[in-house]
Amino acid sequence: MNEKKLITLTGITTTGTPHLGNYVGAIRPAVQASRSDARGSSFFFLADLHALVKNRNPDEVAQSSLEVAAAWLAAGLDTKRAVFYRQSDIPEIPELTWILTTLTAKGLMNRSHAYKAATDANRDADVPDPDRGIAMGLFCYPILMAADILMFHADRVPVGKDQRQHVEMARDIAQRFNHHYGRLLTVPEADIDEHRAVLLGPDGRKMSKSYGNVVPLFCPAKKLRKYIMRVRTNSQAPGEPKDPDDSLLFDMYRSVASAEETAAMRERYAAGIGWAEMKNELFEYLDALLAPGREVYDRLIANPGDVEAELRRGAERAREISRPLMRDIREAVGLRTLRA
Amino acid sequence: MNEKKLITLTGITTTGTPHLGNYVGAIRPAVQASRSDARGSSFFFLADLHALVKNRNPDEVAQSSLEVAAAWLAAGLDTKRAVFYRQSDIPEIPELTWILTTLTAKGLMNRSHAYKAATDANRDADVPDPDRGIAMGLFCYPILMAADILMFHADRVPVGKDQRQHVEMARDIAQRFNHHYGRLLTVPEADIDEHRAVLLGPDGRKMSKSYGNVVPLFCPAKKLRKYIMRVRTNSQAPGEPKDPDDSLLFDMYRSVASAEETAAMRERYAAGIGWAEMKNELFEYLDALLAPGREVYDRLIANPGDVEAELRRGAERAREISRPLMRDIREAVGLRTLRA
Repeated sequence: MNEKKLITLTGITTTGTPHLGNYVGAIRPAVQASRSDARGSSFFFLADLHALVKNRNPDEVAQSSLEVAAAWLAAGLDTKRAVFYRQSDIPEIPELTWILTTLTAKGLMNRSHAYKAATDANRDADVPDPDRGIAMGLFCYPILMAADILMFHADRVPVGKDQRQHVEMARDIAQRFNHHYGRLLTVPEADIDEHRAVLLGPDGRKMSKSYGNVVPLFCPAKKLRKYIMRVRTNSQAPGEPKDPDDSLLFDMYRSVASAEETAAMRERYAAGIGWAEMKNELFEYLDALLAPGREVYDRLIANPGDVEAELRRGAERAREISRPLMRDIREAVGLRTLRA
Repeated sequence: MNEKKLITLTGITTTGTPHLGNYVGAIRPAVQASRSDARGSSFFFLADLHALVKNRNPDEVAQSSLEVAAAWLAAGLDTKRAVFYRQSDIPEIPELTWILTTLTAKGLMNRSHAYKAATDANRDADVPDPDRGIAMGLFCYPILMAADILMFHADRVPVGKDQRQHVEMARDIAQRFNHHYGRLLTVPEADIDEHRAVLLGPDGRKMSKSYGNVVPLFCPAKKLRKYIMRVRTNSQAPGEPKDPDDSLLFDMYRSVASAEETAAMRERYAAGIGWAEMKNELFEYLDALLAPGREVYDRLIANPGDVEAELRRGAERAREISRPLMRDIREAVGLRTLRA
């Protein structure tokens, strides 16, 4: 098996503007990992067909695709190595989705956590029909996600714990396909990162759009500073020794700094660093980290055609995989060219 | 509105080999109607993506596509006027299917007759999970059918009564799309033919694969004769006046003959035509009707490449409609090209 390189595939949600929490938790580690990957062994895609399930505002859908793509590029994703594309540019994905739909047991979808959460919410609100307000997009989402994964022979799918079930469903669907039609599909494995860095918001909760405590990843330095200045501290005076393990500012610093930098900062806490000084340190650190990307990001947002060109190139590379696999899949299920 | 020609769209199931009952009930009237249609105003497609829901034998799926296509061509479908294509050759159809999936209420699918019939069968058999053995393909089928219809701006969809609900669902989905994203989709109407000719089998039941009483449409004359000879009669002797309204042979004759021919045959019944003679008349009539098509059919089955070429041409014409509509739909929902 050592001729075959392992394929890693990562879907990127395109809802909203990428924020610092996304950077620390997802973008930065993925970008770093991608830099040592063999060419063509990691796939990153903008999940814009999924975005339609959650958002019916076309301008927001389009704007988020642009911003998310620009953010990943600005963060340094190496698109010579990694294949970076937009899901909706790969026509083979919806084709495979339908073929997998014909194979997937309805019972499997009934057990999806996301669907169950939606029906539970209806039941809790005493809505008579538990399916009220639920679109088929939510219900069928795991099949599209299976097609995303199986289309590119992904071996490894790094996901949060909440997405583990979707990868398991993709495994189940792949096995069913292979059982009926022959072993064309690679059975993927979820790769759950238990140690994913979490950036906290100024209120001490995880930075998340749903808590309304986000700072856009590549916002102007002024806005970033304002955000840091708002972070909660206690009333200890400068000079008093401080507990780094009970400090939001320290938590945030640690989520971006190296082990050595973190250890050094721990000593400065013991030596009584003042909150104003610490806020300044954190701001300077983040600003230095983000300034180069911010410049690229601003340039890309001003020149969407450059982002488009990157995505087009990525789609062409992705289709070098999806086209021949889809040809084999069509042949296997009986959608065949009639030969003379 | 008189610049716009009305569009009629007909899906053709590709399961099994076309039989005489299909010819009398569907193929012949559609082919006749298509001959007076304006160029490009009627669409006929092989529903091979639907076939996958019912059949997991790839060779059967492929063979049925070939036989059904050959039968329609041999029956005289005018492919200069009508657009004749294979559903799976139009990549825009699965793309649209997903977009419509995001919009379709799950509650609408829960009410589908086909799905309900499957869960009822489980309940009647005391299966604990009513969804047992039901694939998502059955559940999502109406969304694919909506995409089939809406992709080509169909105004009119001729269907049997059992398919009326699917056209109503397509209407519902189109209206929902138009409400959210602007009026891009034509809202179709079902055209229920109450007077569809029904060919009875030799056992007196409707000719149908599920009753096992079919005769393949373009089978050799010898087989056709054997089939007719098996048709049930009573014990009346030649010379005795006979009741045409209580005669399977007469029913079958009437389903293919003209009104004048039928009236003349009625008189021969009164005059006491013998059953052997009548069987011979019916055989000769059917054989004369089918012989020219049979020859074409046999040639096409022996040269699948010719069928492929027809379907390719049809797909190209179909995509002249589906490509630009899909471009507009993508723009409308927010799947946009990033412009410089």
